[in-house]
Parts: sequence; C-alpha cells; structure tokens
Amino acid sequence: MFLSKSFIPLLKNYPSEAKIKSHKLMLRLGMIKQSSAGIYSWLPLGFKVMKKIEQIVREEQNKIGAQEILMPTIQSSEIWKESGRYEDYGEEMLRIKDRQNREILYGPTNEELVTDIFRNSIKSYKSLPQLLYHIQWKFRDELRPRFGIMRCREFFMKDAYSFDLSDDDAEFSYNKFFLSYLKTFKRLELSAIPMTAETGPIGGSLSHEFIILAETGESKIYTDKRIFDVNHDNYKLEKESLKKLRLEYDQFYAVTDEKIDNKEFNNKVDKKNQLETKGIEVGHIFYFGDKYSKPMNTAVDKDGKKIFVKMGSYGIGVSRLVGALIEANFDEKNEVMKWPVSVSPFECAIICFASKNDTTSIEMGIKVKNFLEQNNIETVLDDSDENFSGKLKKFNLIGIPFQILIGKNPDKNKVEFKEVGNDSKMISLEGALNFIKSKKIN
Amino acid sequence: MFLSKSFIPLLKNYPSEAKIKSHKLMLRLGMIKQSSAGIYSWLPLGFKVMKKIEQIVREEQNKIGAQEILMPTIQSSEIWKESGRYEDYGEEMLRIKDRQNREILYGPTNEELVTDIFRNSIKSYKSLPQLLYHIQWKFRDELRPRFGIMRCREFFMKDAYSFDLSDDDAEFSYNKFFLSYLKTFKRLELSAIPMTAETGPIGGSLSHEFIILAETGESKIYTDKRIFDVNHDNYKLEKESLKKLRLEYDQFYAVTDEKIDNKEFNNKVDKKNQLETKGIEVGHIFYFGDKYSKPMNTAVDKDGKKIFVKMGSYGIGVSRLVGALIEANFDEKNEVMKWPVSVSPFECAIICFASKNDTTSIEMGIKVKNFLEQNNIETVLDDSDENFSGKLKKFNLIGIPFQILIGKNPDKNKVEFKEVGNDSKMISLEGALNFIKSKKIN
Repeated sequence: MFLSKSFIPLLKNYPSEAKIKSHKLMLRLGMIKQSSAGIYSWLPLGFKVMKKIEQIVREEQNKIGAQEILMPTIQSSEIWKESGRYEDYGEEMLRIKDRQNREILYGPTNEELVTDIFRNSIKSYKSLPQLLYHIQWKFRDELRPRFGIMRCREFFMKDAYSFDLSDDDAEFSYNKFFLSYLKTFKRLELSAIPMTAETGPIGGSLSHEFIILAETGESKIYTDKRIFDVNHDNYKLEKESLKKLRLEYDQFYAVTDEKIDNKEFNNKVDKKNQLETKGIEVGHIFYFGDKYSKPMNTAVDKDGKKIFVKMGSYGIGVSRLVGALIEANFDEKNEVMKWPVSVSPFECAIICFASKNDTTSIEMGIKVKNFLEQNNIETVLDDSDENFSGKLKKFNLIGIPFQILIGKNPDKNKVEFKEVGNDSKMISLEGALNFIKSKKIN
Repeated sequence: MFLSKSFIPLLKNYPSEAKIKSHKLMLRLGMIKQSSAGIYSWLPLGFKVMKKIEQIVREEQNKIGAQEILMPTIQSSEIWKESGRYEDYGEEMLRIKDRQNREILYGPTNEELVTDIFRNSIKSYKSLPQLLYHIQWKFRDELRPRFGIMRCREFFMKDAYSFDLSDDDAEFSYNKFFLSYLKTFKRLELSAIPMTAETGPIGGSLSHEFIILAETGESKIYTDKRIFDVNHDNYKLEKESLKKLRLEYDQFYAVTDEKIDNKEFNNKVDKKNQLETKGIEVGHIFYFGDKYSKPMNTAVDKDGKKIFVKMGSYGIGVSRLVGALIEANFDEKNEVMKWPVSVSPFECAIICFASKNDTTSIEMGIKVKNFLEQNNIETVLDDSDENFSGKLKKFNLIGIPFQILIGKNPDKNKVEFKEVGNDSKMISLEGALNFIKSKKIN
C-alpha cells in the first residue's frame, strides 16, 4: 500500500472532544469517524486492526470446539417476554416498532435468541455439549456515550453460549472458555486477569471478568500481584487440568470495586503483594444454569426424563479491544504507539525521503516494499511530500512496530531498520525480513 | 468435523412454509432458522457458505484497489434530510426514535453516510480516485418478506462507492467494478449477465444489473444468447481495455422486464439468438455523478476551484448469493445439490457404514479424515447411526461436491471416491486428494 493512495485521513492535532488516549489517537489517525452520538464508522486503519482481533478471537473459539453461527441484529420482543427480561431491561434496549406495528428491538445481548435456536434444533442429550458463538454488532442506548468506542452505542462483540446436561459438565464448558480467553488475550499481548465478578442483568451464580491494567480504566481493581505469574500454558483442554487452572487463579484475591471487601483484602493478601489500580474489562463470562432454559422450556430428553439444559454465556468486546490495546500500549507523553504485530494494521512501514528532483529514495523504497510483500509482510510506503522528521513523528503515532527508514543517500546493501521503541540499526534487507518473521511467530 | 458433534439440525422433510427451492433446502438442511418475519439466524452450515462468499467478494474488491471500511447499521436521519431522501424513502426504511427522542434509522443503503465520511476526510483532488467498500447488514422493512433469505428484511451486502474528479474518471471506476463483478461471479461458478437497468431510488444515469439465470428468478429477462460467449479474461484493469469490455457486452441486447421494448428486441436480435427466461439479481451498479455530492456539499479543491465529486455505488447481495447458488445448482427433482467447491461448507464428505459391533468403517473413516485435513481439505465425517443409503441421500442434499464412501468391508489400498453427479470410482486416497486439490485451484 502507498500512503498517498490510502484512505487514512490523519489530523494535525487531537480533537478537543476526546478525553482519553485511545479516543484521541483513533480520531487523530483517522481510524474511526463518529457518525452520530456513540456510533462510529471504521476507516481502513481502524478496520484492519479490528478485523485482525476478530480473527484471533475466532481461531481461539474454534480451538475449543465452539461452532460459529450468526444471529441477526434485530430481534422480536416475544422471546424477551418469555424470559421475563423485556420489561426489566430498561432504556438501554433500543425498542422499535416496524411498519406492521410489531415490537422489535436491536439486540443488546442474545441469551433469548440462542436459547430459541437451541430448543428448535436439539432434542437429545446425546448431542450435548454444544458450544455456539457469533461475532456481531450489538446496540445499547447509553444515556451518555463517551470515550469513543470504549463506551459507545453500536459495538462489535463475540458472544458464545454453552449448553450442557449437568452443572458439572457445564463447569467444564465454562472452564474451556476461561482458558480460551487467557490464550486470546495473550495473543494480543495483553495480560488480562480473571476476576470474580457480579453477574448483573445476565444473572447466574458464577462469573469472571477479564481485566487488563490501564491507568485510564473505568474500574478500580484490587488484587494480589502474584496472580500475574500464573502461567496457563501448563494447562490442557481437559476437565481435571482446567479445574486446577481455575484453582490456581482462585487462590489469589482479585476483585473490582463492585466486590471489594477491604477487610478480606487485608486478611488474604500480604501488604507487599497488594495491588490497587485501574483496569478495563475486555471479557466477561457467566454461568447461569437454567435461568433461561426453564422459562423458555428448553430441555433435552434423557431416559424419558426432561432435563432443562444448563447454560453459560461468554463475551469479548472486539471493537472495545482496539481501544484497550491503545490504552495499554500508547505512550502519550512521548507520542509513541506500538501495536502488537499480531493486530497491527501493517507489519512494516517504509519511510522514504521525498525530493522533487531525486527519486532515489522512493525507488529504493518500492524495491524494499516489493521484496517484503513477496514474503507476505504487509507494508505501507510513505511516498508523501512531507519532510522526513514529520514522517518519523507520524509513524511513531501510527504504531506499526517495524520501520525501514530510507534517507537521501540510501546504502545499497543495508537498510536502516527500527523496531519502535528501540534504536535503529543498519542490517541487510534479508536480516530485517527474518527479524519481522520471527516476531510474527511469537 | 464429526457430524455427531456438529450443530446441523437436519429436518426429515421440507417445511410447508417454503415455496422456492433455496428456501426449502436451507430450512431442511438447518442452514438458517427464522427468528421473526423476514429475519434469520445463520447456523453453521449456512454460515460457512456465506463467509466463503464474503471472502471471495472481498478479495475481488481488494484486487481493483478498493479499500475496506465498516459503516454502522444505525444512522442519523440528519444526513438523509440533507440529501432529500428522508421523506422519499417510504416505509421500507426502519425509522427509530432513541431514548433521547432523536430520529435514527437502520441503514437501507449508505450513499449519504459514505458521502459524509468522504467530505470530512478528503480535501484535494490529488487524493482521487477513492474506492471504498464495506460488507455489512442492512434492513429493509418489506411489507411481505418471503422466499427465505431471497427477500428478507435483514440482509448482508457488500456496498462499494467510488469518488472521482470527472465523468470520464468516474466511468473508469465504474468499469473496474464491472470487471470485478464478472470475476467475482465466475469464482462462484455463476454465469452472470450484466444488463442495462433502471436506476430506481439510487438515481443516476448509468446502471447495470448482474443477473444469473434461474427458472425461479423474480425478474423476466430478454437477451441475445451470444452474450454468454463474451470472455472477460481477455480484458485488463486499464482504462481502454475496460471500455472495450463494456462495448463488447453492450453490443448484445440484454434487459429485464422493467426495460423490455419488444420491437427493439426483435429488431436487434435474430430470432435464433433470442432468449426469454427468468433470472435473479445478484449485483447492481450505478453511476450517479453529483446527485449526492451536490446537496451534501462534497467537493475537492482543484486550482482554487471547487469541484463536486462524481460518485457511483456498487452492490452485491452476499446473503442472497447463498440462495441464488442453490437456485442455480439444486436439482430438486433428483434431490441432488452440488456447491461450487470455492464456497462449499466442507470440501469432502466421508460417509461411513455404521455398526454397533464392527468399527472397521469408522476407524478407516477417521484415518481418511486425518489425512485429508492434514492436507488442508475441509472434511465432515458422518459417524451417525443412520443406515448407509439414508446417509447417501442426506449427503446428496447437503451438496458437498466430493464424497468418500466407506462401506462394510473397505478396501485397504483404495477408496470409493465420488464427485456428486458422477459415478463413484475406486482410487487411491492420494488420487482422491489430488483430484480435490485440482478442482480447488480452478
């Protein structure tokens, strides 16, 4: 991609309406554009990041045997009346009347709809467990949408649902998602802590929020800092192994301000291990048994007995993760952003010196670009007229983790290669390629 | 994938509410499930097909240099008032009031929204042309939704938009999409004819519908049958070449019943070349100049002069194509469906003989499955208790193009391999793999 042909409408400054760093950076880089209150369009730079996050989330869902479906955004009110949540949900639910005056709504969540799909599809306990997920837009009519895509009205989420015969089986499903979430966030280079959480309007008896640390987070968190040393790589997708994983996490106190009990915190955690900080919720999992299956009469047949299925639900905020990654990785003071290579909009930036009379630098840049692209590295080449130091500042904000700098009189055998945050060095183009490749694998 | 673990709720019979074959088959195979009038959930079998179509559409858009963005489903009424279409659009537009009593709507199309994005992003003519596209859900509140996903309310579409400085440049952009559509439909093994069309509520001066032949189509079409012999492979993504491509198509009369002039048809087309039949619209492209850019004050600066950008829009019905592929490929009389391998939910079905006492067939099936999956062939293995002939009938409906049949006493060195519609033959497993691979490339 040539920067001159791309649709990346960069701004010179941060727009004044933005207060937190992800919102500021996303607007400045033209990653998103607000279309109305709390509703955004995703422009190419933002879209690429979101799509890569979506794909990582998808792959990790598939690995635990979850099957992908796609439920519509618009739902009938009927099923919400069956579950009893239609009246309860309040004004955050976007309620609509269609041309026939039927009550419909823009789904704020999908427990009812997926339960309806399940009850029409599965009759025998032999077909259990079933893990279904979808990645779709949701709408919550926030009274005061703010912080860009972190607290907006239309947002993109992965929602998964599990269906089991017994509480014990259901806990196994719950734990599969627990592990899957840890693996997902690790691939995004985020260290997310699972914290015991309130179940809120979803309901149920067991729940964990996955929180990443960020000074700008909306939740205060209280934890034993040794929880960061738990290594989930040692655990397998097996019932007993996953139980041990849960136990290893559960031994460390970790709650948000919704659940904090200061006395308990001080009793359970040595002063030296206490950590009070702020965090951002990026995932939330729930176990709620037959809360929906019972009122919606969703059961399987076993030995002539009707058994209400036991359900859980599992969410990851895909669009929100774009903002969370900025909150975690953007050094605002020094104006340096660095995306994890797994989700960076491009993998390598090629920054060329521009001159009306001398095209040496651009020509060399195109050769580098072709070579990297032939080797499956996604590149963007800055062929604009801007001066070199302006380009460097700009690309430090864009956050592509690797840069190749091509000045006025480029060396023929070596390139100036830089990993954002480190000093640049002169290496062969092959060497740069191999370095980027090695980082992609991690 | 093992069929026993999959979420594919097959029905024994066609549901009585379905009238056309795509609707009948999709319900019977559990590809979709209606959630309310004209609104469907996509279950794994249908979802896989739709996702593969989406990816082919995306790749062909990228090849002509279009950049992917994502606009939200919910739009503000403000921009529709600017263009003057808010009142005109009628009851098919789903109009909503949010909790603050603001008028919002579920986008039935995106000309206004993309124009708004463009005018806030691009100021100089040097940044033209711009081709932007997105793949997103749309809603049209049809009075009588019918025919399953062929005429539903919430549907999945690719919409692209072009922005140019002059009519001549804009025609080049139009022609790029023209070629891209021919290539897209060819990869779906559909022969789609571009037909001169009415511009309808989108407006403008130039328009083509892309129609595939199907007896169950909603449009009557009148054409010179020699149009099917045009080979777009001879043309390149260059201005002059694309003009010639358009001319080659335009020499053949091809219109829908909206535009038929019988006298002209008889004058222009020899009796022996006349074809009157039915078809399904799968794509529609429009050129409408400054119809939106002028009222929405969307201009670029050139030499101090303000020039309203010239726009076109380009749609492909992604969810509708799933149905169109069934209409084109399902032999209802003989109950045989065959997906193009490029979009088939699986590439090879492994059909095993089931016996309580003898697991030879299943074990052999698992070996075949592992071998094919290691070689990147997507398989599904039928490990159910159903009898063998029942399995064969079922898989003829599911439409996976290649089958490996493993009976009671399987041969150790050869497998019974079948391409749907042909006789089966005994070949080595390597041979079967190579055959499937060769068909994937085409």
